[in-house]
Amino acid sequence: MDKTSAGRFFEDFRLGELITHATPRTITTGDQALYTALYGSRFAVQSSDEFARAVGYPRAPADDLLVFHIVFGKTVPDISLNAIANLGYADCRFLMPVYPGDTLSARSEVIGIKENSNRRTGTIYVRSTGFNQRGEMVLSFVRWVMLRKRDEQAKAAEAQVPKLAPNVTADALGSTCLVIRTAGWDSDLSGSQCRFGDYQPGERIDHVDGMTIEEAEHMLATRLYQNTARVHFNAFSEKAGRFGRRLIYGGHAISLARALSFNGLANAFHIAAINGGRHVAPLFAGGTIFAWSEIVEKADLPERSDIGALRIRTRASRDLPSTDYPVHDASPDTPGIILDFDYWALMPR
Amino acid sequence: MDKTSAGRFFEDFRLGELITHATPRTITTGDQALYTALYGSRFAVQSSDEFARAVGYPRAPADDLLVFHIVFGKTVPDISLNAIANLGYADCRFLMPVYPGDTLSARSEVIGIKENSNRRTGTIYVRSTGFNQRGEMVLSFVRWVMLRKRDEQAKAAEAQVPKLAPNVTADALGSTCLVIRTAGWDSDLSGSQCRFGDYQPGERIDHVDGMTIEEAEHMLATRLYQNTARVHFNAFSEKAGRFGRRLIYGGHAISLARALSFNGLANAFHIAAINGGRHVAPLFAGGTIFAWSEIVEKADLPERSDIGALRIRTRASRDLPSTDYPVHDASPDTPGIILDFDYWALMPR
Amino acid sequence: MDKTSAGRFFEDFRLGELITHATPRTITTGDQALYTALYGSRFAVQSSDEFARAVGYPRAPADDLLVFHIVFGKTVPDISLNAIANLGYADCRFLMPVYPGDTLSARSEVIGIKENSNRRTGTIYVRSTGFNQRGEMVLSFVRWVMLRKRDEQAKAAEAQVPKLAPNVTADALGSTCLVIRTAGWDSDLSGSQCRFGDYQPGERIDHVDGMTIEEAEHMLATRLYQNTARVHFNAFSEKAGRFGRRLIYGGHAISLARALSFNGLANAFHIAAINGGRHVAPLFAGGTIFAWSEIVEKADLPERSDIGALRIRTRASRDLPSTDYPVHDASPDTPGIILDFDYWALMPR
Repeated sequence: MDKTSAGRFFEDFRLGELITHATPRTITTGDQALYTALYGSRFAVQSSDEFARAVGYPRAPADDLLVFHIVFGKTVPDISLNAIANLGYADCRFLMPVYPGDTLSARSEVIGIKENSNRRTGTIYVRSTGFNQRGEMVLSFVRWVMLRKRDEQAKAAEAQVPKLAPNVTADALGSTCLVIRTAGWDSDLSGSQCRFGDYQPGERIDHVDGMTIEEAEHMLATRLYQNTARVHFNAFSEKAGRFGRRLIYGGHAISLARALSFNGLANAFHIAAINGGRHVAPLFAGGTIFAWSEIVEKADLPERSDIGALRIRTRASRDLPSTDYPVHDASPDTPGIILDFDYWALMPR
Repeated sequence: MDKTSAGRFFEDFRLGELITHATPRTITTGDQALYTALYGSRFAVQSSDEFARAVGYPRAPADDLLVFHIVFGKTVPDISLNAIANLGYADCRFLMPVYPGDTLSARSEVIGIKENSNRRTGTIYVRSTGFNQRGEMVLSFVRWVMLRKRDEQAKAAEAQVPKLAPNVTADALGSTCLVIRTAGWDSDLSGSQCRFGDYQPGERIDHVDGMTIEEAEHMLATRLYQNTARVHFNAFSEKAGRFGRRLIYGGHAISLARALSFNGLANAFHIAAINGGRHVAPLFAGGTIFAWSEIVEKADLPERSDIGALRIRTRASRDLPSTDYPVHDASPDTPGIILDFDYWALMPR
Repeated sequence: MDKTSAGRFFEDFRLGELITHATPRTITTGDQALYTALYGSRFAVQSSDEFARAVGYPRAPADDLLVFHIVFGKTVPDISLNAIANLGYADCRFLMPVYPGDTLSARSEVIGIKENSNRRTGTIYVRSTGFNQRGEMVLSFVRWVMLRKRDEQAKAAEAQVPKLAPNVTADALGSTCLVIRTAGWDSDLSGSQCRFGDYQPGERIDHVDGMTIEEAEHMLATRLYQNTARVHFNAFSEKAGRFGRRLIYGGHAISLARALSFNGLANAFHIAAINGGRHVAPLFAGGTIFAWSEIVEKADLPERSDIGALRIRTRASRDLPSTDYPVHDASPDTPGIILDFDYWALMPR
């Protein structure tokens, strides 16, 4: 029996295969404190038990992205250890709040396999799902990664590529958020007077602030998530690697951008879904992250008069302030842009 | 409605104005663990539930300075985001212990306004108060900051400068500390046999040890406090700024000096009040902090036979060991000195 | 009364002396979260309350090495502040699980004293013991350190060197681990199908991954443990010291090696005893740690059909992948090897 895992290669996946990931994890207030220390997040619902209770939660839930990172981290040893590239995310839905004390575990199903024409690599599509200790789904997302083959001669299964909607539809969002007591929503405490009605599609918001990343910080974060992708931790091997240095976990940039977005989106208290995220360029320690957002769409939610959903596209840049919203619409690959992140946030009315 | 805040400028403040600060925060054992990891604090009351209970607390309270930093952090977005300088603190009193599970929020009242003769800047005085979830005041302090004006033509209100006592008087200190069961105070566990009676005014104590600061550490700390002052986080912008690099939050130096002071003041279990603090010189990552203290005054507390108060002046220096107490009394601005901190600590008899 | 401590010197110790160490510490989920963030540990029993309960624990216990580091840290101010060298460990036994909420304190007994022939230094042997809040022993170990004399003329007591067994015998291990419900042990969740029966003496396991250490990380760790050994924190003084830079706490390397060993030893859920540990070479920030293990011995445990014990020798190296198990058996001091660690781990059958 092989005792160590060097990770799976392309030909190790079978369509329809179910993979139970290792290391369930009990989320604690310690995790949440570290999350705050790593990103400086200030959303009131996640920061204060009292604020959370005033609006209808039993207590402050864990930050949505902390949940995402921990579930994602569990999938890494089985799915993406030998990934050449994380090609994309889709249909990521946050289905239920996670509270300190809850225990998360994760499973993935292989939903697509496609060998590349070079026959040395291929793309695997998986749907990964996070569960709490009662077996309730708390998070579900699809991602696809390009993997090396161990053996170039290995015969690949027939190509199967899943059909993925370009984004999560708004009608699915409401059922996953408990009813918010908007009368209990104190806008002074939440940090903004702007509610759902105050945002308009097409609006752009510069989140103003910048945050520099140190090596110690992104490694603390990625280990906290028990994410084992070696490119983040091993300066010795990476010196001889593609970039000559450690690469920062893409989720670290997402969390930084989300924390910066408080300045302009303070009442966007909950990420209900992620439509997609693209890490436009690699990110390294020493870079300073800026972010700006565009309101792409607004949606009323069926039978919900308490909240509405904003579809937000957030771009993060490296060493490039967002003052002038630096993106050429024709070319998303503006130099300095590192993240293009499309998500649904809920906001009280 | 402007959705992002670039912070208030001098002319945005009105005398008597009350400002409710955003983002209430539930303090957890996670915050306290991070505080320990950041400073290596060893005071027994804050470190051990058992020690705390043996001397009369229901459990280990949060470190006093953790409470200070979190309350202070809340005031930053509204008060000092555009500060040219944090000019001073006064009359800072710790009024009630804070325990993990308590939720802190903060309000400030504008108590003084004075435009500078250059008409481009001015000084704002605020009293900031931290509350727990029962609305009880846990902390109150005055600070004053020099701010830019947004518009030099803006007419300033008539100058009003509050009268501030040079220090907190000792008689106010006792009522804010619960009765300590001195019979339960185990001096082996607390780390020192020296009690209140063993200290004398004029005495100087070299705290011996030095602690080097890394960029990742002070940023983790300042984000943990949800302090948004951009000079601490943004290496990109600060490269073009006054110092050419990130500036460390002054409170980080205070916490380091306090943690170092354990070696010599191990039984000074509680900061009851801060008379004043001056950041004599800016502090940057890579510096090694040393500290020494002088006992300025001793005070019996009305109706308290369990504890006494020591007024302590602690100086911290950068890359300058305290062996020879390096301060010229005539000039507090000795090269290398970065902090001059004057506070009242309580000590068992 | 001397208020500050510069640490004890060789002649300050008396054979049979009992030392109660300062600063009891309540372990919290915050400490455990930091431990995870520092090392990326993935052992399921310590990571998940649910997994722990399924196999028989009341909840997830703290990581064994977190307990070790915290107890060890308490001994530093009294034992090893003036150590020239930490010469060795022996007979370290983990006697009882520690859970968040438990409070640890420590005592040491001087069990050996031997002046060196140069009369300027000597070796002190102590047995240090960690207790929980009920006074139960949770950890016990012997270590010996070489200390300077304060006064070279001081007369030393007659040499007494304790007899130490070369390793902990297996029959002592079982009684300290609660009965494991192996039917509840989910090998998918634990990360490996390999149980006790699958390992054989002589087997070597390359733990594959490498982890680079930053200054901020090892200092956060060592402060979390309230370890005050100045060589870890003071870049200013160390610049003029033996290595010209900060030295990393040896226990940090042990924890990294143990976390890396998950890949190959995922079901080695509990360190029952440490037979010895040698820090073969000093370790500095910037180094990348690799590790490999050799199964030295297997032992059935009296009256335990649930678990068996593996005696494991783990070597960690710096900037030297373990692919070829780089140790010359004749010379353990292979360049790049930094740690030689011999311990007993328990594993379900």
